[in-house]
Amino acid sequence: MKLEELATALGLPFEGEPSFQIRGLASLDDGGPSDLGFVTGAGYRELFQRSAIGVVIVPLDFDVEGRKCLRSIQPYADFARAVDQIMPDRHRPSPGVHPTAVLENDVELGADVSIGAYAVLGSGCMIGARSIIHPHVTLYPDVRIGEDCVIHSHACLREAVHLGNRIHVQNGAVIGSDGFGFAFRADGTQVRVPHRRGVEIGDEAEIGSNTTIDRSHPGHSRHGFEVTATRIGRAVKIDNQVHIAHDCVIEDGCTLCGQTALGGGTYVEKNVFFGGRSGAIRARVGEGSLIGGWTGVLQDTPPGSKLLGFPAIERGLWGRVTAALKRLPELLRRVRRIEKALEMDQSEQE
Amino acid sequence: MKLEELATALGLPFEGEPSFQIRGLASLDDGGPSDLGFVTGAGYRELFQRSAIGVVIVPLDFDVEGRKCLRSIQPYADFARAVDQIMPDRHRPSPGVHPTAVLENDVELGADVSIGAYAVLGSGCMIGARSIIHPHVTLYPDVRIGEDCVIHSHACLREAVHLGNRIHVQNGAVIGSDGFGFAFRADGTQVRVPHRRGVEIGDEAEIGSNTTIDRSHPGHSRHGFEVTATRIGRAVKIDNQVHIAHDCVIEDGCTLCGQTALGGGTYVEKNVFFGGRSGAIRARVGEGSLIGGWTGVLQDTPPGSKLLGFPAIERGLWGRVTAALKRLPELLRRVRRIEKALEMDQSEQE
Amino acid sequence: MKLEELATALGLPFEGEPSFQIRGLASLDDGGPSDLGFVTGAGYRELFQRSAIGVVIVPLDFDVEGRKCLRSIQPYADFARAVDQIMPDRHRPSPGVHPTAVLENDVELGADVSIGAYAVLGSGCMIGARSIIHPHVTLYPDVRIGEDCVIHSHACLREAVHLGNRIHVQNGAVIGSDGFGFAFRADGTQVRVPHRRGVEIGDEAEIGSNTTIDRSHPGHSRHGFEVTATRIGRAVKIDNQVHIAHDCVIEDGCTLCGQTALGGGTYVEKNVFFGGRSGAIRARVGEGSLIGGWTGVLQDTPPGSKLLGFPAIERGLWGRVTAALKRLPELLRRVRRIEKALEMDQSEQE
Repeated sequence: MKLEELATALGLPFEGEPSFQIRGLASLDDGGPSDLGFVTGAGYRELFQRSAIGVVIVPLDFDVEGRKCLRSIQPYADFARAVDQIMPDRHRPSPGVHPTAVLENDVELGADVSIGAYAVLGSGCMIGARSIIHPHVTLYPDVRIGEDCVIHSHACLREAVHLGNRIHVQNGAVIGSDGFGFAFRADGTQVRVPHRRGVEIGDEAEIGSNTTIDRSHPGHSRHGFEVTATRIGRAVKIDNQVHIAHDCVIEDGCTLCGQTALGGGTYVEKNVFFGGRSGAIRARVGEGSLIGGWTGVLQDTPPGSKLLGFPAIERGLWGRVTAALKRLPELLRRVRRIEKALEMDQSEQE
Repeated sequence: MKLEELATALGLPFEGEPSFQIRGLASLDDGGPSDLGFVTGAGYRELFQRSAIGVVIVPLDFDVEGRKCLRSIQPYADFARAVDQIMPDRHRPSPGVHPTAVLENDVELGADVSIGAYAVLGSGCMIGARSIIHPHVTLYPDVRIGEDCVIHSHACLREAVHLGNRIHVQNGAVIGSDGFGFAFRADGTQVRVPHRRGVEIGDEAEIGSNTTIDRSHPGHSRHGFEVTATRIGRAVKIDNQVHIAHDCVIEDGCTLCGQTALGGGTYVEKNVFFGGRSGAIRARVGEGSLIGGWTGVLQDTPPGSKLLGFPAIERGLWGRVTAALKRLPELLRRVRRIEKALEMDQSEQE
Repeated sequence: MKLEELATALGLPFEGEPSFQIRGLASLDDGGPSDLGFVTGAGYRELFQRSAIGVVIVPLDFDVEGRKCLRSIQPYADFARAVDQIMPDRHRPSPGVHPTAVLENDVELGADVSIGAYAVLGSGCMIGARSIIHPHVTLYPDVRIGEDCVIHSHACLREAVHLGNRIHVQNGAVIGSDGFGFAFRADGTQVRVPHRRGVEIGDEAEIGSNTTIDRSHPGHSRHGFEVTATRIGRAVKIDNQVHIAHDCVIEDGCTLCGQTALGGGTYVEKNVFFGGRSGAIRARVGEGSLIGGWTGVLQDTPPGSKLLGFPAIERGLWGRVTAALKRLPELLRRVRRIEKALEMDQSEQE
């Protein structure tokens, strides 16, 4: 693709030979003379100078030292858009229903929907325009999927799961499985608590591969407001192998990295970031909080919290504690030495 | 549904207008005048008084202050049963074999079994009466499933997995995958250790979505008793994304919350509770133990242990340790100050 | 099977009656007089003497005290081979393409390939000789699988995933799902970063059930060398529910136990061992390192590191720290007592 064509497609100003052919995409490290890369700021100056890359998407005020470039307010976001130009998705399924798909009679399909081989759509399902259901997807009855969604192979959406628009569900994700709840009978045996309410997922959410999200049960409540479904807000990004138990509510704009787990009824306010393998149990997590990797939140936290550790504590304190921990064996010895010097009783210690 | 009808269906005494129409289910927080909720004890008195809910299932001696109620020894268990009355499962598949299901000739099906679209049942499989095999379930050869089981879509049961009765397997669960074992050859390369023994699961067990349970290998042993299969006892409740390695034995009545992991050959005695993302490695966990969330058991523990942390320690001690941890940086400073006051050498510390 | 036949099949010297019938496989604990077991060294002498087992595979110099045996340089590896003789896999699918499999016209199949019921193979897929694709496997376009591979049911290989030879992929594994990457636009909304490069997996690798491995994105780089795909080396053994994010590189001979997680772009040198539920984030892990269970590596580590804890520290130090931790509450009291004795100010502590 020519530099000028790419600039036009992305709507960005460019510098350099308009007919220059861009052949690939790369990082500054890897890139060769015909590759396109990106620079997000001045911190990459040295790497930029060493790089053999041909063309870069750079901030408006970045000195390109004579190199070919496109200029952008958000170079990484525009690089992401450039990928679709230079390396388009050649494998996008065509619209149409594969002859092996099993659709109940009352299923409603929007315009240009694609339904892959062996997909199974239960009674009452509705699929919005241009959405893609890959092979081997199972939709239980009454699933509703909005427009421009992509549901990958082996994903399963259970009864009454409702998706908005432009949502990606990766392979093997399970949305709407029964919540984990059992009530003890008088004789000590247990009865399953039926989870009959659904899951609602907002526009532009992402659900990672083999992630599981449980449906809601009708007797659950928390935090004094109504919960009628497990609810994932708009643009919530959920990575692989995340576990979201029944009746969680995750407000708009949150990010949950790989293997994060939320216990039943967790309430997460807007724009919270959960690092890899973090989680929360019976807590309300305040807006804009930053939950570090491997961190477990066990109680309600105010907006803007920055937490690390298990149980979670304030991030700065956690850094000091973990640094001090390495010196704990030494500290024991020092206290013993002091006690000796003072001829104090050490009975408690041995 | 009328109050009197519900009371009859559940076999419970009731108070209030017999023909009162119950229209929904809710918690005390959410409930409106035509909803049914429940109260488990006196601790909910205040919430009960504030609630707008119409009917409640309450303990026998709970003062309902004139409200409509049903009386129960176990209100939560009876509420769970009420869900099936008020909000029945409308999506239960009908008995019969879908024409697209692939069954080997020697498969045996009990009365009123339901086999969904694209299910695959290998040679020698046996399905008990009234069990439901949802679409896209794969049963390898020689799988046996008892009566009244429900196997959800995309679950996979490998060779010689045997299930009892009234078991639920959620979507995407894998039961009987090969154990993770490799033996080193003299040249440093590895040979796979074939895991050819199966998995046995007792009546009324629950297997969560995307949970994995590995089969057994014939040279494995532990704890001086015979292990001939990975074994899950009666009424063991396993949540989503739990990982159970080869040759584990989990006795009756245990609960394993989401993302729990048991290393190969772990032995868990009866009625042990594992909190979310906990686990055990090469250990025998004593009867009735309570393993807290995120806790890792690394050695044999006596019956009734209450453990927290990694490595697991006694729960009370863990509470004191984590409280004290926050003060560790301060403690370092205090000891330094004491050493200064005593004019002691601080060489070890810097 | 006769002892002599087994010895011939395995190419091992034996002692005892050649026509002795071996009927089963067992450990020293469980074994009866007609079972075959193994002993790896002198440490099992006492167990060996107590055992009722009939035949054992033992090291060359092990005194069998008159028992029947086979002698081996690597008894456990030869026991693993013996399993295939005594307890062969009766369920190995036959070569051939099941009539319900959906193969695009340009799919290329090697000799004696087996394709199971409802498998879906996209355009451009190539399957090497003798490989087995179990029912309900989905291969997106351009997947290449080498010779003698086994892909179990419900596994999904996404666009342009390339496998070498003799690889096992367990059930429900997802290889090549989209990496988790989003770029912020100027207005605060996010754009998906398309991950269009594939995953490459070396000969004799093992991929556990419900494990997820993400594909690579073309702008990613790290560690100053080229990354053109998420790459899993030769003989890398990956257990169940492992999460490997986009653009990781795992060199030959590594082992990743259950639930391990590697963040995007992690670089793992040869022969590293990751214990259960361990992981690394933005790190280069040195050759031959031993990462303990539940351990999180947050920075580059030299070859041969032995680490434990979160954040990971040297193994010996971790042992001393966790031992000392139990005494931390006591230590606080002792320091307070010293301060009292010295009549020092304790203002900081309360």
